[in-house]
Amino acid sequence: MNVKTVLILLGLALATIFALVCVLLTRGRAPSTCQHLPPEHEDTKDGQSLVFADLTPEEMTQVVRYLQGNLGVQLVDASRAKPSDNCIASVDLQVPAKAEVLQFLDGGGARPPREALAVLYFGNQPDPNVTEYVVGPLPTPAYHRDVTVQKYGGKVPYHRRPVTGKEYMDINTLIQRELKKAPRFLAACCESDGTDLAILTTAPRGFKSGDRTTWFVLFHNMPGTGYYLSPVGLEVLVEHKDLHVSNWQLHKVFYNGQYFATTGDLEQEFVAGTLEVVKLKQPQTDAVLGSMKLRSPPDSPGPLHFEAQGPRYRVRDNHITFQGWSIAFGMNPNSGPRLFDIRYRGERIVYELSLQEALALYGSNCPGGMSTRYLDGSFGIGRFAYELVRGLDCPYAATYVDRHYLAESDAPKTNQNSLCIFEHDSALPLRRHFSDSQSFYYGGLRKNTLVIRTISTLINYDYIWDFMFHGSGAVEVRVHATGYISTSFLHRRGTDYGNRVGPHTLGTMHLHHMHYKVDLDVDGQLNSLETQDMEYELIKDPWSMQNTIERPYLRRKSLEREDEAAFPLDAPMPRYLSFASPNPNKWGHPRSYRIQTVSFAGKHLPTSSSMERSVSWGRYQLAVTRRKEEEPTSTSIYNQNDPWTPTVAFADFINNETITSEDLVAWISVGFLHVPHAEDVPNTVTVGNGVGFFLRPYNYFDEDPSVDSPDSVYFSSEQDAGACRANPLACLPRTAGCAPRLPPFRFGGFLNLSLPPPPEGP
Amino acid sequence: MNVKTVLILLGLALATIFALVCVLLTRGRAPSTCQHLPPEHEDTKDGQSLVFADLTPEEMTQVVRYLQGNLGVQLVDASRAKPSDNCIASVDLQVPAKAEVLQFLDGGGARPPREALAVLYFGNQPDPNVTEYVVGPLPTPAYHRDVTVQKYGGKVPYHRRPVTGKEYMDINTLIQRELKKAPRFLAACCESDGTDLAILTTAPRGFKSGDRTTWFVLFHNMPGTGYYLSPVGLEVLVEHKDLHVSNWQLHKVFYNGQYFATTGDLEQEFVAGTLEVVKLKQPQTDAVLGSMKLRSPPDSPGPLHFEAQGPRYRVRDNHITFQGWSIAFGMNPNSGPRLFDIRYRGERIVYELSLQEALALYGSNCPGGMSTRYLDGSFGIGRFAYELVRGLDCPYAATYVDRHYLAESDAPKTNQNSLCIFEHDSALPLRRHFSDSQSFYYGGLRKNTLVIRTISTLINYDYIWDFMFHGSGAVEVRVHATGYISTSFLHRRGTDYGNRVGPHTLGTMHLHHMHYKVDLDVDGQLNSLETQDMEYELIKDPWSMQNTIERPYLRRKSLEREDEAAFPLDAPMPRYLSFASPNPNKWGHPRSYRIQTVSFAGKHLPTSSSMERSVSWGRYQLAVTRRKEEEPTSTSIYNQNDPWTPTVAFADFINNETITSEDLVAWISVGFLHVPHAEDVPNTVTVGNGVGFFLRPYNYFDEDPSVDSPDSVYFSSEQDAGACRANPLACLPRTAGCAPRLPPFRFGGFLNLSLPPPPEGP
Repeated sequence: MNVKTVLILLGLALATIFALVCVLLTRGRAPSTCQHLPPEHEDTKDGQSLVFADLTPEEMTQVVRYLQGNLGVQLVDASRAKPSDNCIASVDLQVPAKAEVLQFLDGGGARPPREALAVLYFGNQPDPNVTEYVVGPLPTPAYHRDVTVQKYGGKVPYHRRPVTGKEYMDINTLIQRELKKAPRFLAACCESDGTDLAILTTAPRGFKSGDRTTWFVLFHNMPGTGYYLSPVGLEVLVEHKDLHVSNWQLHKVFYNGQYFATTGDLEQEFVAGTLEVVKLKQPQTDAVLGSMKLRSPPDSPGPLHFEAQGPRYRVRDNHITFQGWSIAFGMNPNSGPRLFDIRYRGERIVYELSLQEALALYGSNCPGGMSTRYLDGSFGIGRFAYELVRGLDCPYAATYVDRHYLAESDAPKTNQNSLCIFEHDSALPLRRHFSDSQSFYYGGLRKNTLVIRTISTLINYDYIWDFMFHGSGAVEVRVHATGYISTSFLHRRGTDYGNRVGPHTLGTMHLHHMHYKVDLDVDGQLNSLETQDMEYELIKDPWSMQNTIERPYLRRKSLEREDEAAFPLDAPMPRYLSFASPNPNKWGHPRSYRIQTVSFAGKHLPTSSSMERSVSWGRYQLAVTRRKEEEPTSTSIYNQNDPWTPTVAFADFINNETITSEDLVAWISVGFLHVPHAEDVPNTVTVGNGVGFFLRPYNYFDEDPSVDSPDSVYFSSEQDAGACRANPLACLPRTAGCAPRLPPFRFGGFLNLSLPPPPEGP
Repeated sequence: MNVKTVLILLGLALATIFALVCVLLTRGRAPSTCQHLPPEHEDTKDGQSLVFADLTPEEMTQVVRYLQGNLGVQLVDASRAKPSDNCIASVDLQVPAKAEVLQFLDGGGARPPREALAVLYFGNQPDPNVTEYVVGPLPTPAYHRDVTVQKYGGKVPYHRRPVTGKEYMDINTLIQRELKKAPRFLAACCESDGTDLAILTTAPRGFKSGDRTTWFVLFHNMPGTGYYLSPVGLEVLVEHKDLHVSNWQLHKVFYNGQYFATTGDLEQEFVAGTLEVVKLKQPQTDAVLGSMKLRSPPDSPGPLHFEAQGPRYRVRDNHITFQGWSIAFGMNPNSGPRLFDIRYRGERIVYELSLQEALALYGSNCPGGMSTRYLDGSFGIGRFAYELVRGLDCPYAATYVDRHYLAESDAPKTNQNSLCIFEHDSALPLRRHFSDSQSFYYGGLRKNTLVIRTISTLINYDYIWDFMFHGSGAVEVRVHATGYISTSFLHRRGTDYGNRVGPHTLGTMHLHHMHYKVDLDVDGQLNSLETQDMEYELIKDPWSMQNTIERPYLRRKSLEREDEAAFPLDAPMPRYLSFASPNPNKWGHPRSYRIQTVSFAGKHLPTSSSMERSVSWGRYQLAVTRRKEEEPTSTSIYNQNDPWTPTVAFADFINNETITSEDLVAWISVGFLHVPHAEDVPNTVTVGNGVGFFLRPYNYFDEDPSVDSPDSVYFSSEQDAGACRANPLACLPRTAGCAPRLPPFRFGGFLNLSLPPPPEGP
């Protein structure tokens, strides 16, 4: 190789180097991927919250094993158990008594033993019944204690038990058998042989204690779409009370406004030509009513939550910390989400905040619709909280955690990613002021909120349960309803009970009322209830005494007894109502938290109703009672199937005890009247269908605690607001100049469903 | 150079190339900066919305020039004008008559002439008065028309005019002069010579028409912090009615619970030692009450709004489009934000949606506090909507637009970036359903909302005005209050009127009531008002007739007259109330929009009050009246200074006219009772202090319009939800894998303030 060639090569190489360096320098501006910073460690006493932790799958398995070996009776797996068998209905955490827990958390006492609550259906006994056992200590159970009588004042009759998936399957078999007796009618009305119809339960199931006679409503099934919008007009009344399935029977048939004794009678009238039949086509997959299949190609994505330096909250086991907040969370398979030991800046504000019940009560001129008063807790608000869809149910980058439950089975099940936690930018100032007077400055803080969410699907509708924690020390609880509406077949004066939303579909009016337990402990356990409201007083102006002023003044009142503190659903409440500690803040006012509700509730069921006591919590928008270990919940899963002799009647909690300087619980009802309209198809929207309540500090602090927030912004006219050191907002173009790295989308929510046949109902 | 050296160099060069290529390949994975896609062009008739556009600065200037040359009187610039001068108070758009506009928008008619409304204070006339002129046509005015008598049924007396900044300055001078007469008292009470005290106006100003006697409250001024929290206990009553400032006088002095005729008397009592003085230190800059200065170093940033492909809405002049929505926006300098011609999918739903008034009515045992009933429209809700702070008042990447106004000056002024527009991810599904029954699928849609926001600072408090547009066809209107509270000096039984929030500070109770005009045009101009509510009926079960069912049913009613459609503030309303078109939807129900309010209002001022008629809109939570061109607003800027003879009395609009099949307006009041507490320091937080209303489609469509959204998500158990082509959520890790490029932070909000001295008040 001669020098010239080599020199040319060297020249080329140098040119290449130059080109590469240029490319590199230009590319050098490409942003990097966002680096997550670990949130500050706020936990001081790690592991304390585990006292409230839901059972682990291992613990559930241990309890099942213990029960199988120690009850001395034969247990059949609930997914296969006949009514005449014994089975384990559910195993859940037995939350330890508050005194014990507080002794442990605050008093340096021992950790309470970990225990489970097992519910057993004893069908194979001389006196069939439901029995509840406390089983402990976990992880290796050594004892069980029958707590039924202690809890409910007596045995729980067998007929009160919720209907299991197996029972629904047996009912479906019966209905299918009966439908076989009306082949020509079914072909004419529904282009069906009956086997392709979907069957939906109603509840309650009769009119008096012991009844177990349920209306089932039939729909055209439409794979991939909610069949709830396509009733065919046929409903059947099934008695399924007997322990032997072979003795069950169909009691009544309803079609298009008429009642028949049997499906055979229906067929006969049809054949005789005396039946008015509404001939429905099998739904076409393309344009079925209520389809959510996409009609437009996707657009560019909307705004996303973007955490340049990662989440600022911390989740560890059942414990969350965020900017001074500390919360233990869990899920009751029946009643749903529950929070414990909510603290702010180290001080407990709420001992327990838990959903109790969701009632859906319908009107209709069809028998199934008019009978329906679903008590969702009996179906399982917690166990039907399924996997959340990343980026839609919660922000894409939220933290998702699994929940486990054991219900109607001897093996635990998992709802993976079924609870999400995220910080939300509500795009609103939490506080702000711009000063245009005397001196010029700006101060403010974004309203960033920690959200804990789970969503329960109760067959047709979906409840979105939110618990939110604000930088001002306020807690916000909110529920939105969405999903499919329930409908009836439209006939005659159907629109007296709702609106027509499809060719033969009546969207039936109903109310959604929800009940919460809020065991506030404001600056200690002993609180009183105070109200404040405004009045006008007529005075002479004090400087001339010649003119009249209508002056607002504050009427302060302390409520002394439970009866005064039970506010009927439809009566006005004092505008301010708070849980007050005996201790004053810096300015001499009792340290308090205010309860503020946002609700559009319907009318409560008349108290003359034979089942009203089972939902008597619904009488009150707010009731404050003394906290009692014997009054842990305002309802019971047994209330649904025997509402005429409620196992728990909330109204009994209110017995005019004194409530000054006591450990108090606020029981809060929220809800809305829903008259479905065309826009509820395909699904009810959440806009305007959200209700809930706030717990707000009221003279609890000496000033707004958010002044200490590291997110605070303040600059004056003398500062350079564009400089990052003066104003953190000016740093954003730099700190947020990186690309989020989102995990790949995964969804396993259907996997669990395929194996056991899905339970029908509500 | 020998070959060996060159070869070595070549070797080195090749190694360098290799290294550079390696670096490049690695760096190649660095994400790119986000590329913005232009939103789809949704405008069909560009420029039509300009018929509602606020005046441009050029137009204002032209009007001023025209007035100066054509009124035949001498005009003094309002910023310098004495009460005995003539001046231009304001120039704003004269919104054309609705019939004319509709003829233009819908009927192919001519564009209405563009006109301005000029308000003049004629102090230099034999009969001083306020006169309103319509001036047109713009941009080159050729005519003016005195519309005062036509609008108000008579001349507007001069004493009704709002107080100008100049008038406040002259009052301050008077007060300062009078304070000079109490030097020893001031030194003792306040470590002050008076000149460093801040002076805050109250309103109204007397007890009968013609009065202009105002209580002014004195505070320790604290540069950089809201002085509103530091009253010194001194208040003065000033008569400033006379056209000649030299005739104004101080009428009364209040200090710490006592009244004095003059400041001299106060000084005398102090010197005599008979005065009880509360000695206040000058506030220390470090730890003043209400300081918002940072106490913690900034944390990592919270979640940010991130629009990977840019905004999906489009703003052009005064017109916004977003996913089927089309809105014209503007700002009235007095009454604040106003929207026009709100359409969804091409159909007009609302012709006008505008804020009318904000009332703040206080209780106190100090004369200033107990006199205060601010009507903020008279101060200027629109003109005091200042620059928004990027990243706090609105998302960092929001679109910010300027507003211009002409008020108390001959030159237009600009509030730059004072209105923001953004799409907000509310981190909630708009709708969703997870199917666990019959077939397994998931469908849903995020609740992404277009928000239009402006924030008004009315001296101490800040109102956040939001207008939101949902994918379900619903409009949401919301206002939050924040900023500093107003306070009184705490003495005697002060806490009958609020809570103590500082050493000598009483946070005075008050109500914030806001009034909106909503001119709905639901499927045409002619609408009727329908209500629906639930009742229970007692029936026998139709299948056995042996048992009783309490069945909900729907009570539908059509309201025929204005009196029926005026719902008192404190009475229950029908749960459903809607504007109905005569045309049915596909299912036979009248196409309607429902009004749903969220409010925590206080008690309305007793109608026995001599000023009640000036705020008589506050009697009703909702009143529906026939729309009249002569009833454009529910209040007037002249109501504040003569509430005893209101220039506009809303109650007169309600005169029992029929309201079936008419062009109707809904007038909506929302508000809350605010009892300030320790946590209102430094600023009231927005959590729980938001009120507003929804306009929701109710059988307006045949199904929820959001099914057509390109953001819809749907997948079944048979699909691979993780595949981007099946599920747009699965595309996010890719489409959002880029870095946002945020503009640098800039804030010019203080710049406008420095030149003219800030007006005092409210």
